[in-house]
Amino acid sequence: MRGAVLHGTRDVRIEERARPKIVRPTDAVIRISAACVCGSDLWPYRGNPPITQPTPMGHEYCGIVEEVGSAVKSVKPGQFVIGSFFASDNVCPTCQIGYQSSCRQRELVGGAQAPLLRVPLADGTLVATRDIPSEDLIPSLLTLSDVMGTGWFAADAANVRPGGTVAVVGDGAVGLLGVLSAKQMGAGRIIAMSRHESRQKLAREFGATDIVTERGDEGVARIKDLTDGIGADSVLECVGTGESMQQAIQSTRPGGFMSYVGVPHGVELKGEQLFYSHVHLHGGPAPVRRYLPEMIDLVLDGKINPGKVFDLVLPLNQVAEGYRAMDERRAIKALLCPQ
Amino acid sequence: MRGAVLHGTRDVRIEERARPKIVRPTDAVIRISAACVCGSDLWPYRGNPPITQPTPMGHEYCGIVEEVGSAVKSVKPGQFVIGSFFASDNVCPTCQIGYQSSCRQRELVGGAQAPLLRVPLADGTLVATRDIPSEDLIPSLLTLSDVMGTGWFAADAANVRPGGTVAVVGDGAVGLLGVLSAKQMGAGRIIAMSRHESRQKLAREFGATDIVTERGDEGVARIKDLTDGIGADSVLECVGTGESMQQAIQSTRPGGFMSYVGVPHGVELKGEQLFYSHVHLHGGPAPVRRYLPEMIDLVLDGKINPGKVFDLVLPLNQVAEGYRAMDERRAIKALLCPQ
Repeated sequence: MRGAVLHGTRDVRIEERARPKIVRPTDAVIRISAACVCGSDLWPYRGNPPITQPTPMGHEYCGIVEEVGSAVKSVKPGQFVIGSFFASDNVCPTCQIGYQSSCRQRELVGGAQAPLLRVPLADGTLVATRDIPSEDLIPSLLTLSDVMGTGWFAADAANVRPGGTVAVVGDGAVGLLGVLSAKQMGAGRIIAMSRHESRQKLAREFGATDIVTERGDEGVARIKDLTDGIGADSVLECVGTGESMQQAIQSTRPGGFMSYVGVPHGVELKGEQLFYSHVHLHGGPAPVRRYLPEMIDLVLDGKINPGKVFDLVLPLNQVAEGYRAMDERRAIKALLCPQ
Repeated sequence: MRGAVLHGTRDVRIEERARPKIVRPTDAVIRISAACVCGSDLWPYRGNPPITQPTPMGHEYCGIVEEVGSAVKSVKPGQFVIGSFFASDNVCPTCQIGYQSSCRQRELVGGAQAPLLRVPLADGTLVATRDIPSEDLIPSLLTLSDVMGTGWFAADAANVRPGGTVAVVGDGAVGLLGVLSAKQMGAGRIIAMSRHESRQKLAREFGATDIVTERGDEGVARIKDLTDGIGADSVLECVGTGESMQQAIQSTRPGGFMSYVGVPHGVELKGEQLFYSHVHLHGGPAPVRRYLPEMIDLVLDGKINPGKVFDLVLPLNQVAEGYRAMDERRAIKALLCPQ
């Protein structure tokens, strides 16, 4: 089987890898219908932190179950499934309250940029659709595995409410799908922070009512201008840098809610700033599994079309170009077709 | 008029001060029924940070209205009133959503350790009782001005729910009243972290079901032992140091809620820790004004007795002993009688 392997900074290759197999009785092996490159893949791709050994890449996936372990009960070969990037047992106390991405047994899924993938804890991780979905729905269903689930969590964690004012920091795929999620949750005003025309366009398509191109203090000042001088009710931080966190905190009104879903790199927050900002904070790795059933219905019913974030479609053997295009911000997100 | 003035580290004195008067038409002057020393007064008292000029002390107060400015409508001379340590207009957009301590016009009330006090923005800050309360209720009513309001906010911001598990970090007066607040909100289990016998006793009286005497990693391990290994649903951080914040974050279960109400001193939080902890965070200066009407009713109806935190009662001219006793942790909280 040929899959994507990261060998070092900006060095991702397609090469022969062992065919995934059932290792534990709770595993499943699925045949990937489509995979993609995640914004978080770009951190190690850019050498931050540098990888220490060749690493199979990819953690966003959907596909047809090929084989299941002897203990797997909820999915069976032939079914179309979507799963979270974090495998979970979905029964521990943390899963039961909806934080499957902090499951006691959680395990990062890896190596999805390939034709086949082993998924641990299949019963607690995968959700099957009733029927095999049509081809045109595959991109949207694929996004539910991480990027759309993460945008959805960002909106949920920032307490987006009908009629509320929302600001989204970050115009990557997660930020754009945060806009879509906020719209779906009924936000009245959605301010997208972006300086890229193609991303602004998609943000508007997804429901953004205002675009702010300024950053840092100027960006904060613009958000305040648009929100009675106090800041937005809900702010979604979808980047993960110190600058974007600052921008987000300062853009939130006192008593408002700020979520952070971008994996933080070098972020430090001062207690005093948090204290006097009066902001609610919540975030972390999205508990995608919690939202999967609802999000799958929204896609199958045609209510949301998050697959629009894929503006580059490549056969798997051109994965290196997918990373390059996203690294250089030529593409929002690259879809990879393994077959 | 003789009132308390801080002159330098551990140097608080009673001395002659100008009689407060109406400066702006929105002011009131009240005759203090009782005042007290706040845990936050101990920071400048201990020289952290050192004060730059002699400073009149005290921001917790209740008393009888002596005089009001021409614009004041909601309170009148002769009424008994309680107000927040932060004056607020109670009409700006931030006040309207219940964050009066971030009011656009907010102003710290100061100099309450004295017989008379000027309160700015009287209409938005003070709440009058229907009748003049009996003497025995004064200590409890006084606590509503800050320490009890802060404990209540700590419990509210940590999302305390009926039947939930709560841990309280800090056994000062705020922490103890956080226990009382959690009990009042219906918490099922309340774990107080304390190693002082008299404070443990009061914590139990206020509703604590468990006492943890360990601190740091050992304290966290004990909390996990008591909570199925995952941590408490709600954790109230009532100290304000880096150590106590760490202890609180690590004691909260994934998806749980942690509040911080102790004024932070030298606290820095790493983004990565917050991200992977999956904790909700909220805190800041308590919006006491929001809670005053409800808390006043609870005291007048005899449902709560937060005045029990005063284990030292002194005439105002012995204020220095009040500071010393609290600094040395001989007293939980000192009540000062100005007349």
